[in-house]
Amino acid sequence: MLEKVNIPSDIKGFSIDELNVLARDIRQVILDTVMENGGHLASSLGAVETIIAMHYCFNAPHDKFVFDVGHQCYAHKLLTGRVEEFATLRKKDGMAGFPKKEESEYDVVNTGHASTSLSIACGLSRALANASSDAIAVSLIGDGALTGGLAFEALNDSVTVNKKQIIILNDNSMSISANVGSTAKYLLKLHTSNTYNNFKSKAYGIVKGVKIDGVAKSMKFLYKAKNSIKYFLQGGMPFEQFGLRYYGPLDGHNLSELIFAFNAAYEDNESCILHIVTKKGYGFLEAEENPAKFHGYSPSKKSSAQTFSSAFGESMKYIASKNEKIFAVTAAMREGTGLECYAEMFPERFSDVGIAEGHAATMSAGLALCGYKPYFAVYSSFLQRAYDSVIHDVCMQDLPVTFCIDRAGIVPDDGETHQGIYDLNFLRLVPNIAVLCPKNTAELDAMIKWSIDYMHPLAIRYPKGSNNVTSKVKPIVLGEWDVICEAESNLIILATGAKMVEVGGDIVDILAKKHIKATFVNARFVKPMDEKYLLTLSGKTVVTLEDNVLAGGFGSSVLEFFNRVEMNVNVACFGINDEMLTHATVNELLVMTGLDAETLANKIEAKYKKHKK
Amino acid sequence: MLEKVNIPSDIKGFSIDELNVLARDIRQVILDTVMENGGHLASSLGAVETIIAMHYCFNAPHDKFVFDVGHQCYAHKLLTGRVEEFATLRKKDGMAGFPKKEESEYDVVNTGHASTSLSIACGLSRALANASSDAIAVSLIGDGALTGGLAFEALNDSVTVNKKQIIILNDNSMSISANVGSTAKYLLKLHTSNTYNNFKSKAYGIVKGVKIDGVAKSMKFLYKAKNSIKYFLQGGMPFEQFGLRYYGPLDGHNLSELIFAFNAAYEDNESCILHIVTKKGYGFLEAEENPAKFHGYSPSKKSSAQTFSSAFGESMKYIASKNEKIFAVTAAMREGTGLECYAEMFPERFSDVGIAEGHAATMSAGLALCGYKPYFAVYSSFLQRAYDSVIHDVCMQDLPVTFCIDRAGIVPDDGETHQGIYDLNFLRLVPNIAVLCPKNTAELDAMIKWSIDYMHPLAIRYPKGSNNVTSKVKPIVLGEWDVICEAESNLIILATGAKMVEVGGDIVDILAKKHIKATFVNARFVKPMDEKYLLTLSGKTVVTLEDNVLAGGFGSSVLEFFNRVEMNVNVACFGINDEMLTHATVNELLVMTGLDAETLANKIEAKYKKHKK
Repeated sequence: MLEKVNIPSDIKGFSIDELNVLARDIRQVILDTVMENGGHLASSLGAVETIIAMHYCFNAPHDKFVFDVGHQCYAHKLLTGRVEEFATLRKKDGMAGFPKKEESEYDVVNTGHASTSLSIACGLSRALANASSDAIAVSLIGDGALTGGLAFEALNDSVTVNKKQIIILNDNSMSISANVGSTAKYLLKLHTSNTYNNFKSKAYGIVKGVKIDGVAKSMKFLYKAKNSIKYFLQGGMPFEQFGLRYYGPLDGHNLSELIFAFNAAYEDNESCILHIVTKKGYGFLEAEENPAKFHGYSPSKKSSAQTFSSAFGESMKYIASKNEKIFAVTAAMREGTGLECYAEMFPERFSDVGIAEGHAATMSAGLALCGYKPYFAVYSSFLQRAYDSVIHDVCMQDLPVTFCIDRAGIVPDDGETHQGIYDLNFLRLVPNIAVLCPKNTAELDAMIKWSIDYMHPLAIRYPKGSNNVTSKVKPIVLGEWDVICEAESNLIILATGAKMVEVGGDIVDILAKKHIKATFVNARFVKPMDEKYLLTLSGKTVVTLEDNVLAGGFGSSVLEFFNRVEMNVNVACFGINDEMLTHATVNELLVMTGLDAETLANKIEAKYKKHKK
Repeated sequence: MLEKVNIPSDIKGFSIDELNVLARDIRQVILDTVMENGGHLASSLGAVETIIAMHYCFNAPHDKFVFDVGHQCYAHKLLTGRVEEFATLRKKDGMAGFPKKEESEYDVVNTGHASTSLSIACGLSRALANASSDAIAVSLIGDGALTGGLAFEALNDSVTVNKKQIIILNDNSMSISANVGSTAKYLLKLHTSNTYNNFKSKAYGIVKGVKIDGVAKSMKFLYKAKNSIKYFLQGGMPFEQFGLRYYGPLDGHNLSELIFAFNAAYEDNESCILHIVTKKGYGFLEAEENPAKFHGYSPSKKSSAQTFSSAFGESMKYIASKNEKIFAVTAAMREGTGLECYAEMFPERFSDVGIAEGHAATMSAGLALCGYKPYFAVYSSFLQRAYDSVIHDVCMQDLPVTFCIDRAGIVPDDGETHQGIYDLNFLRLVPNIAVLCPKNTAELDAMIKWSIDYMHPLAIRYPKGSNNVTSKVKPIVLGEWDVICEAESNLIILATGAKMVEVGGDIVDILAKKHIKATFVNARFVKPMDEKYLLTLSGKTVVTLEDNVLAGGFGSSVLEFFNRVEMNVNVACFGINDEMLTHATVNELLVMTGLDAETLANKIEAKYKKHKK
């Protein structure tokens, strides 16, 4: 059936049976492609029927579809004329794994982070209202993303928007990890309540036979019926507080039920929330049974090297066993950050607060105020969501909270929203915080162990993936760098972070073949820097390497220092220019940014020779 | 009565009548002091009885009091042994206007921004639970702060905390502006419902006569009574969804009623929310009638110069009248940001989203996606809360949202949490954004008018207070600086932002008296910089002036540029070192940071002479 769909309105004439075949076709394409390219499998499989029903009942691109996070949108891409390109999913120059307005007029907004959809929809709806447009915004948001404060801020504001909007709540009881907190409990109560389900199936029975143009009226009856005391007693009402009609829960894999409800919501005049229950990974047994594993699937290129995430988890277990004040915090990333085993071993000193990075950081400040030593494990690009909590609640009070920043630097496949290329810059400008970048998993372990007695704010950043630097770890001393190889040379290479230490090692080898010697330093403290060492570099050529943006980065910090102490040093800074990084492999991204060893070696050679003249 | 209070437990023997006299005394001291020193008058007056009741019923510092924002805590300071110091409120080296743990063991956490209290309390409670302590966390949060996403994230998480906590919701229907959104509507419904009030007064009547040790039991009865269908129908239930018992609404100025309920909550085993209704500015008629005006009160030092906020408001009215796509957004700061008149003139193109900076920025992105040109007016230190929205939702999509950043740079009186000294640094590292700093209100006006046709992300930052720079405005051209005075000299002073252009002007005068000529430039574009101009400065002494942190700031940007193009320039960067700025006047803060004209002129003279040798 998928072959018959060029534009989404092509499916409007399909029968339910044909739509079910279409769903199967789409699922097969997703499965085949993700097994090859990697991608967000479980959530995309779970949303197939929902997205089919959206295109069947609503009119994109006239109506504006907003996909929260956007990792579930593969079916949408396949229904909007992108079947052929789908084979290039997440490949360099290929189709992005998230909605991209540059890709299609059906993609309204670019996303990648959670909980933004309802805010975007508020803005769209205000604009549509002012233009007296009959188009509406339709958001698809997961129950996990609903725990993010931004979603709540939008719900609170949405009542003041003078325009109908439709919110589809895709409830699969999962973020990337299983969901937590009272919102999750509440939703579970809603969709497991027997009384309610009986009531609903009865009401649904009444209206099931009614033909399509009668649906809205019947749904209104259903809605009114729900407005009974019984209904209030068991749910829905918190959404009513936000000025939203509540329909649900609906079976998110039953196309008849979805189409029935979506049509009713479309014909109604009021904003509503459609609560649908789906199974993450639906249609692919392995993913259904282990959705966390198949959240972001990578085709196995098994490397024997340990990942930074798992090394971090091991270190945390070790320090927690030695010191009872250690406490680990995550924002819905227990598996991703490597804390699975830790959480099992130390449930009393572990907290998964849901998709709520700001709260995770501020709550950590509260723990620290009562004598704990919290470690908040978070992906670099998501830490941006907690920036004020970092500044206002942790650093301004000089509290001993450690931010363990995974996926820092260049990140493969997921594109610009997942790049960790800003953290070093936006952190080092904050007072009281120290910023560390281990060169390998052994140094990460040493830093975590060293951090136990460090009673100030701390950030330790490390990349996605495996350890590729084998040089020995020198004991950690605050502000002391690690000279990996000392050469009799006026060329000094300062590399920060595991990826650039790896690249730097290759550069040293390339230069050696050209008979250029260089001293090579692992600049593992970005703040405070090793000023004692820097003071020895007068008159030399100093190269800085970092896989984050140059503006205000590590190189700038070195420039600031030499400028402040009025030292004459020939500095060359290499990092990422003021532009965004799309999706590609790490090696492709290094080449694209000119940060591969070959390119850098040539540039460094030129710079060095020019200076020698 | 206040004279009799050295530690808070001194009030535990007071009668209700004595407590009422104490409240009057406290109110008088607050009023007298704030009239002299300035401060947060309305909210502090409104919270007097609540804070007395907290100290009467709970046991600080054993129990942990967490004041949201902290601007309402004056009564707490007066009750915890700080009556004498109170005269130094907000003065240099004097008492801070917010809780400060360095000031007193009764101040548990330092605050200044909204919506953090419940997160802090979650952290404290987790730590207290693990320590099996019988101490509890008691949070006092306003209804305005409750609309912040962080508060919601904490509520969602609090159900998983295995420890009783008490949340006092101080409902005065105001943030700084009047509250908005569905939470405000809901609370209003709660405390104006006649049915409910009747019900409550009846139930309250039953238990009113019961003596104190019977209170908890009676309250439980009251609670149970509330758990009726009637109760569910009209409120409280959303809080129950968060696993919190709900008591209220209570008269927040009736000490008997407060003490009755606080005692009951204290003796109960479960976490609860105590909903109290207060009047902002209570006891001072002028403040009661105009709480927004008395939110942050400054004793009048009437200056004829226009403030940046009011100039901004005027410019917005002008451009909105010329262009129907202009849309203004604020996060509970309509008056503070100067948008009062605009909001009246253009209600359809104005949105106050409540204390919800992240949503304001992301919602603006939604508006821009539908063809609007949104201007989000926000205080610098609060923009930190929207950092991911700035990056992920606005800049990565290159949307034409303008951030109008008030209170940028050095901010007087409120202390470290309100300093706007990071924005320039954390913004310029983000792709696609331009960062502008007008030298005076006329240039702000010119920039706002120029921005209409600029279809990319934009930040315009300006200080609190008045315009003190009179030099003429040159037409705005992207990336073009304004040479205020050109001299035949090798000394070039580049100042960015109104305050530093003002200081820079004084420096030029001081140097002139010493027969040192200098070219003086208003570096009004921090990004993109005027590279054409910079390229003319080879061999010169270039001084950069900025009132934000040096790490990654404007000076660094200049260093980065000269380094990249390999120009030999003698640069000296002046700004704020890696330390926090406390509360004091702007002039005092300039002296403390070495950014006053006298100090800078001496340093620049020395640098310049050294270089000439």
